[in-house]
Amino acid sequence: MSRRLHFNLFLHDTGHHEASWRLPGSDPYANLSLAAHQHLARVAEDAKFDSVFLADSPVLWSDPGRRPAGKLEPTLLLAALAVSTSRIGLIATASTSYNEPYNLARRFASLDHLSGGRAGWNIVTTAGDAAARNFGLADQPLHRARYERADEFLDVSTKLWDSWADDATIADKQAGVHALRDRVHEIGHEGDFFRVEGALNVPRSPQAYPLLVQAGSSEDGKDFAARWAEAVFTAQPTLAESQAFYADLKRRVAAAGRDPGHVVILPGIVPVIGATEAEARELDAELDRLIAPRYAIGTLAHTLRVDPSVLHLDEPLPDDLPGEDEIEGAKSRRTLIVDWARRENLTVRQLIGKLGGGRGHRTFTGTPVQVADTIQHYFDNGAADGFNIMPAVLPSGIEAFATEVVPILQERGLFRTEYEGSTLREHYGLPRPANRFALQGVAR
Amino acid sequence: MSRRLHFNLFLHDTGHHEASWRLPGSDPYANLSLAAHQHLARVAEDAKFDSVFLADSPVLWSDPGRRPAGKLEPTLLLAALAVSTSRIGLIATASTSYNEPYNLARRFASLDHLSGGRAGWNIVTTAGDAAARNFGLADQPLHRARYERADEFLDVSTKLWDSWADDATIADKQAGVHALRDRVHEIGHEGDFFRVEGALNVPRSPQAYPLLVQAGSSEDGKDFAARWAEAVFTAQPTLAESQAFYADLKRRVAAAGRDPGHVVILPGIVPVIGATEAEARELDAELDRLIAPRYAIGTLAHTLRVDPSVLHLDEPLPDDLPGEDEIEGAKSRRTLIVDWARRENLTVRQLIGKLGGGRGHRTFTGTPVQVADTIQHYFDNGAADGFNIMPAVLPSGIEAFATEVVPILQERGLFRTEYEGSTLREHYGLPRPANRFALQGVAR
Ligand SMILES: Cc1cc2nc3c(=O)[nH]c(=O)nc-3n(C[C@H](O)[C@H](O)[C@H](O)COP(=O)(O)O)c2cc1C
Ligand SMILES: Cc1cc2nc3c(=O)[nH]c(=O)nc-3n(C[C@H](O)[C@H](O)[C@H](O)COP(=O)(O)O)c2cc1C
Repeated sequence: MSRRLHFNLFLHDTGHHEASWRLPGSDPYANLSLAAHQHLARVAEDAKFDSVFLADSPVLWSDPGRRPAGKLEPTLLLAALAVSTSRIGLIATASTSYNEPYNLARRFASLDHLSGGRAGWNIVTTAGDAAARNFGLADQPLHRARYERADEFLDVSTKLWDSWADDATIADKQAGVHALRDRVHEIGHEGDFFRVEGALNVPRSPQAYPLLVQAGSSEDGKDFAARWAEAVFTAQPTLAESQAFYADLKRRVAAAGRDPGHVVILPGIVPVIGATEAEARELDAELDRLIAPRYAIGTLAHTLRVDPSVLHLDEPLPDDLPGEDEIEGAKSRRTLIVDWARRENLTVRQLIGKLGGGRGHRTFTGTPVQVADTIQHYFDNGAADGFNIMPAVLPSGIEAFATEVVPILQERGLFRTEYEGSTLREHYGLPRPANRFALQGVAR
Repeated sequence: MSRRLHFNLFLHDTGHHEASWRLPGSDPYANLSLAAHQHLARVAEDAKFDSVFLADSPVLWSDPGRRPAGKLEPTLLLAALAVSTSRIGLIATASTSYNEPYNLARRFASLDHLSGGRAGWNIVTTAGDAAARNFGLADQPLHRARYERADEFLDVSTKLWDSWADDATIADKQAGVHALRDRVHEIGHEGDFFRVEGALNVPRSPQAYPLLVQAGSSEDGKDFAARWAEAVFTAQPTLAESQAFYADLKRRVAAAGRDPGHVVILPGIVPVIGATEAEARELDAELDRLIAPRYAIGTLAHTLRVDPSVLHLDEPLPDDLPGEDEIEGAKSRRTLIVDWARRENLTVRQLIGKLGGGRGHRTFTGTPVQVADTIQHYFDNGAADGFNIMPAVLPSGIEAFATEVVPILQERGLFRTEYEGSTLREHYGLPRPANRFALQGVAR
């Protein structure tokens, strides 16, 4: 079979543009609405998307005045959506810095059971001191230490997911033996961050464990992805940057001893679709007019680690900004923004407009055919295995994408017209993980 | 309106009798089946039950040979059941010893939003060293320390749930203000166990926060319930013990300065229902014959903190058992078992039979009218505000209770024929919590 595109819908209440909730047609309570999320997931499923995805951070992220700031916890929301859908994958973000592996491994194993093998985990280390202050810390742990913990977290989690052999449960009513004790293993993990005895109290799930997804793009982040990730989200504003990221990551995967074909790279794209180019541009402009600079300046200053007073709306960024090495938070995001502003010689107001829409992702304004052409161009030129679709406005943006862009790509033979597999890994063409205990014949 | 009974269904895959999975009609994979849980919840909802409930411990609890040992994580399973039901309350167990308040408060607030105000939290401190060893500890924290942490955990959680005023979100599209910054409060908690800045990233939910449920019956457990619980599960084998517990707990609630009418006491009952008494007794006997003593002796020895070799199937318990004060785990359970065995002069085999069925709860074998009479007798004689229904076999036990016992109680005017309210607290006749920040007018 020829190579096929993969699509993930990044769920985001009224849309990824920060002012989308202010549009007349938007439901400003969509962030807390099960029905709104059910609708988005069903539209994506009808369009045969591989998955839907929810971002997360254990902190009140933005000023609650600015846009809908409250979020339902992703693993719970996706458990509810598992009932409302039947084929599409369900990817929840969860932090390795502010969870315990035993608890989180259980939740993802449970989600995989509940959904019949459709669970995915977007693994994040959670940048920011504000989140740390919800967990007894004064400041966030160092960037490097967060990734060290993440590594051990994955080691523990995969051991826990392997702790029940696939064939452990025999349910022999006659003999009165439900599962074979010697196919359920303690893991006895003792590391720098965790000591976990095991076994997990959830038997092995349909996919063995959730699809492992990652989105960090610092050096440490990319190396972590190379070791663990099966799918990678990334924010790249241009084709050239996407190609460079793609080549770099596939190289790192090979260097880590894994098959580069077993990691699916999904850059984010913010499509703003109109019947004509002019119509699409008008929607884009309307959204940008609705951005309130009083909030956006604060966020930008925070990301760049400067005082808001040094940023002036109609001037470029100041020259003397702190470097990436001085930042313990989201390093790569800061650099992306600074490079972008300098390259395109943007004023602060222009930069805010671009960030308000795509937050550093590729925004693409155009007709359905233009959007399809761009997607194909990336796909054919070593920049992507598929896309993380981040509509500026929801649900209208995904409805337009599903009914107008997807059929063009199906017509071209680039995207499925029916689900072929039943699990999330099958959708992405990835193999089911083997069990380390089965492989090594341990404790049989 | 006259006083009405309340019913909770304690969900438990093939039933509360440990051998129930071995019956010919049982689905031995029900523990991991969404469909099986959906069916149970719908039967209970059709019968107008107040709630369903899932127990939990973050550890592989029993020998996986003995009975279905794998469990889906309760908050996720109930999020799924929120979609499959529309009126019934959803109570999940979660541990204060092995969670962080910020994470857990979010999950329960999310469940309350997803279910339209039907969430409840059975607060447990989690006995046992095995659970502790999944969280970096060699042994469990002392019983007293677990309850101290639980107290502070509830303090933090209720602050977080209060951190958004009920009227914080205004969604003013024109002004571009989604929520009022000064009605969203940092909590700035600094205590012995937790430092949590807040605010929560989930706005105030329909019920303000989940119904608080508790089930510990040691001295510390009862005092904790008196301070926090709105509903209490309890295991009491006789009417007299239920009456004593009921009077004692209501007294403690009053002593803690709360309204005893605002705490609903729900003893567990294991109904084994037959068309005739003889038929019910035959089902009971069949179940007891299916218990495998090799597993049951180990559990009993563990609870009593003795070596299994000192327990002999056809002899009474040994005289020299460790006292309650020597036990850091589930103190009250040990005492209940020992008292019961001594009072009724049971052999170890007889004791195991009784525990295998109800695990210390009141087992009641009889016809539908006899079961209804017993329930009414408890209810009318200061022993219960309702019951935690724990059928020995599922789903048949709840189907029989719903179609045969509930109509008798409805006929007598003792149980609702329709839901009157929409939230879980409304089902139990309890008031919605006020917001401490609103009351004190803080930071307005
Ligand atoms: C599409 C996408 C989604 C992301 N979602 C989250 C998220 O939900 N939570 C989070 O903490 N970080 C999220 N991130 C941020 C990354 O995980 C990462 O922290 C960030 O890119 C900085 O990289 P670094 O951690 O490697 O320094 C996301 C990034 C991308 C590109
Ligand atoms: C109906 C009922 C359900 C219970 N469910 C749980 C549970 O899910 N998890 C748990 O750790 N303990 C559970 N318990 C045990 C109590 O929370 C408590 O730990 C036990 O009664 C010992 O009391 P103590 O903790 O006050 O010593 C339950 C008790 C009863 C009566």
